[in-house]
Amino acid sequence: MTFSSKLIEKAVEAFASLPGIGRKTALRLVLHLLNQDKATTTQVASALVAMREGIRECQTCHNLADEAVCQICADTRRDRSLVCVVENIRDLMAIEDTGQYRGLYHVLGGIISPIEGVSPADLNIDSLMERIAQGEIKEVIMAISPTIEGETTVYYLSKKLQPSGVLVSAIARGVSFGGDLEYADELTLGRSIVARIPYSR
Amino acid sequence: MTFSSKLIEKAVEAFASLPGIGRKTALRLVLHLLNQDKATTTQVASALVAMREGIRECQTCHNLADEAVCQICADTRRDRSLVCVVENIRDLMAIEDTGQYRGLYHVLGGIISPIEGVSPADLNIDSLMERIAQGEIKEVIMAISPTIEGETTVYYLSKKLQPSGVLVSAIARGVSFGGDLEYADELTLGRSIVARIPYSR
Repeated sequence: MTFSSKLIEKAVEAFASLPGIGRKTALRLVLHLLNQDKATTTQVASALVAMREGIRECQTCHNLADEAVCQICADTRRDRSLVCVVENIRDLMAIEDTGQYRGLYHVLGGIISPIEGVSPADLNIDSLMERIAQGEIKEVIMAISPTIEGETTVYYLSKKLQPSGVLVSAIARGVSFGGDLEYADELTLGRSIVARIPYSR
Repeated sequence: MTFSSKLIEKAVEAFASLPGIGRKTALRLVLHLLNQDKATTTQVASALVAMREGIRECQTCHNLADEAVCQICADTRRDRSLVCVVENIRDLMAIEDTGQYRGLYHVLGGIISPIEGVSPADLNIDSLMERIAQGEIKEVIMAISPTIEGETTVYYLSKKLQPSGVLVSAIARGVSFGGDLEYADELTLGRSIVARIPYSR
C-alpha cells in the first residue's frame, strides 16, 4: 500500500499495530476519522491515553479499577462470602454479563502452565489466601477453563484451600442450552450423564 | 457488556465508535493496549491526533497531503500531461498500488448523485477545468466506478471537457484476469465481446 502522506502512513501503522486490524482496515478507520470533526479524533485519542495512564489493579481482587479498589469489591450489596476465581478480566466480564452472580471475584492473572513457564508463584494466589485468612469468605467457586492447564490450576488451588475449610466448588459443565446432543463432543456428553442432576419442576 | 471501570468503558466506546468495530472487538483492543507499555498507547493516540490536525488537501489535485501540494503532484518524474480522475482517495490509492500509472490525479470528492443530493457544484470540477486551462494536460482518464451515478459523472465531465480539446478516455472494463468466463456477469461479458481488442503477441 502506497501513501502519499507520511501522516496518514503513521496513523495507519498505529491502527495496524493493534490485533486483528490489517492495513486495509486501518486505512478505512483513518479515512473515517478524516471525515469526522477534529474533535472526534482528539476524543478517541484522549480516551485511550486516559485509560492507559489512569487504570489500576484492584488491590483486593486484581480486577481493573479506576480507584484503589474496584467497583465490584466496593459494592456493599454484593455477597462477600462468595468468591469466584477466574483466569483473567475477560472471564470476569463474561460472568458479570450473565447477571447471575452477586458475589466477589479473584483474578488469577493466568493459569499454571509448565510449558509456558507459568508457575503458581506467577499468579495472584497469595493474595487469595490472605483474603480467605480474613474469615469472611465461605465458598470459593472455580470458574477456570476446562483445559489441562485449567484443571491443574483448579487441583492446585483446591489442595491449597483445603486446610482453610472453605467450600470449594466449580462451575457446572455439560451440554449447552440450545445445543444439540448429536453435536456435543463425547467428553462433555459423557460427563453430563455421569454428573446428571435430579429433575425438578 | 458491564464494565467495572469508567476508564475502560470510555476507551471501549472510543474504539467502538469507529466503523466495523463492535464492543467485543473494542474491548479486545483495550485489553491489548493494557498488556503493552504505556508508551504504545501514547504513540497510537499521538499518531492519530497528528494525522487529523496536520493533514491537508493538495491544492492541485485534492489528494491528502502533508504540505500544500501532495507528494504525487510534487514528483517531477511523473507524466504531467496525464490526469486520472477518481472519485475518492481510496480509488487513487488502489491505482497507485498497481504501479502501472505514472501520471497525475484529480480527486473529485464524490460523484454526481441526484438521490443523495450531490450536484456537479459539490465536486472538485472547477479546479479540474482550471488545471486543463493551463494547457499542460493532454489526456484525462476517467477511473470512475461503472454505476449509474458514475456513468452520469463521466458523461457530464466528458461534455464539459469537450471544448478544451483534451483526449478523454476511460479505464478498460471486461472480464477480470483469473476470472472464470462462466461466472462473469452478463453485462460485463457482453460488453467485453463488443469492446474486444485485437490480439497481439
